[in-house]
Formats: sequence, C-alpha cells, structure tokens
Amino acid sequence: MLTVGQVATRSLCVRDEIVRGFAELLGDRNPIHLDDDFAKHSRFGQRIAHGMIAASLISAVLGNDLPGPGTVYLSQSLQFVAPVFIGDTLEARVQVRTIKDGKPIATLETVCTNQRGEVVLKGEAIVLFKLPDAA
Amino acid sequence: MLTVGQVATRSLCVRDEIVRGFAELLGDRNPIHLDDDFAKHSRFGQRIAHGMIAASLISAVLGNDLPGPGTVYLSQSLQFVAPVFIGDTLEARVQVRTIKDGKPIATLETVCTNQRGEVVLKGEAIVLFKLPDAA
Repeated sequence: MLTVGQVATRSLCVRDEIVRGFAELLGDRNPIHLDDDFAKHSRFGQRIAHGMIAASLISAVLGNDLPGPGTVYLSQSLQFVAPVFIGDTLEARVQVRTIKDGKPIATLETVCTNQRGEVVLKGEAIVLFKLPDAA
Repeated sequence: MLTVGQVATRSLCVRDEIVRGFAELLGDRNPIHLDDDFAKHSRFGQRIAHGMIAASLISAVLGNDLPGPGTVYLSQSLQFVAPVFIGDTLEARVQVRTIKDGKPIATLETVCTNQRGEVVLKGEAIVLFKLPDAA
C-alpha cells in the first residue's frame, strides 16, 4: 500500500548513445545536444543532454517503482537547475508527499542529482496510482 | 529575432515503435504503455503512450523551431489532461508569451493536441534562448 514518506530511486548513465537515440526517436535535434562545435561556443562549452531525458528518468521511477506499474501522470513540474553533460550518471529520487483521502491520487517530490551530488532537476509529480487488486 | 506572439508547431505519430523504443531507451517499462493485457483492465481499456513522449515533442519544437537551436530549458510545467493512445498523431504548439527585458529568457505557452483536436497536454516553458551571432 502506498504510504506518505516512501522513497524510490533509479540511476541512469546518460551515455552519448542515449542522447543520440533520444534525438532520433523524438526528433529533438537541437545542436546543443548533438554538435560538439556548436556546443563549444555555448554557455556550457560542451554538449548537454536533453532535459527531457532526466525528466523521463523520473517518469521511469514512477512507472516502475513508486507508485509502480499502472501509474498515470496527472502533472509534473520541472525546474532544470543545472546542466547534464554526456556521460553523467543521474539518480532520480521520488518521495510520496501526500495521498488524497479516498482517491488514488498522490503528490510526489521528484529530484534528479548527478554523480557529484548536485541537483540538476527538481519538481513535483501528481499521479493516479493503481490500487492493489482485490484478493 | 524572437518576438512575443510567434508560434511554431510540430507533429508526431506516436507509433508503437516509438513507445517501445522510448521504454527501452529510458527504462520506463510501466505495463500500461507496453502490455495489452494489463492495459485492458486499466481505466483506459487500452495501452497509452508515456506522457514524456508528448512532453518531448514540446521540447523538440523549442530546440528545433522556436526559439530554435541553442535553446536551453529553465523550467517546464506539464498538465496531462487526456490520454495519448498508440497511433495517435500529436501536434505540439508553442507560442512566445513574454521575453525578459535585456535577457535571453522567454516564457512560452506549450500545448499538445491529438488528431481529434483534443488537448492532451498543456503547460508553460521558460527557456534561455540563443541570441543571433553578431554580424
């Protein structure tokens, strides 16, 4: 049963193949993610990963782990507070904040940090979760 | 030059291969996206696409079209107001709402609709955009 305070995490190394695969699959070909020469002249001096890759890691925790299979998004806020570089390892952490009285609706704090412990993405998810099947 | 009121759109048919490719790439294996039997007993009666696929189509408009190459996310809010089914064709529409005085920061309204004209996702993006290179 879902409980306030529960935590789940999931890690992902954002390899170049993931960034290029994501660009190919969804058509997001912003050169700041794909083109070393372009990115060299940007504010970060190197390529960065798509923000939606970190956001998708949060979604993966929600759908795989907590609340888990059957979870459906109602909303997600995303604040991109630091860049994710190619090869960074992200950890997404999700914690149940509130559960609606009598409704399968939960609010969860959602945070991604990198391998240096820096927060790169934070926000809040509201989801419909699947109730356990009746015995 | 970026101007308040400018609009850009981008379409994507959310084929099964995209849903399965997304699940594989990012590890989001929620069976509501992948397993017909599981999904048949869900509130929607069929599989739905990952919400982050629609969100990524918004990101693709921002990074490809408006503001375009070099754009970097500061924040994105996402309200998932209707399900996206496998085979639906989404159109993401982005419109510039405000541009910060003297700073390359824009706020954009972001909406995804399906082939029936129903809004499936709405929200707001705040981005850093790339200024045109000096002549």
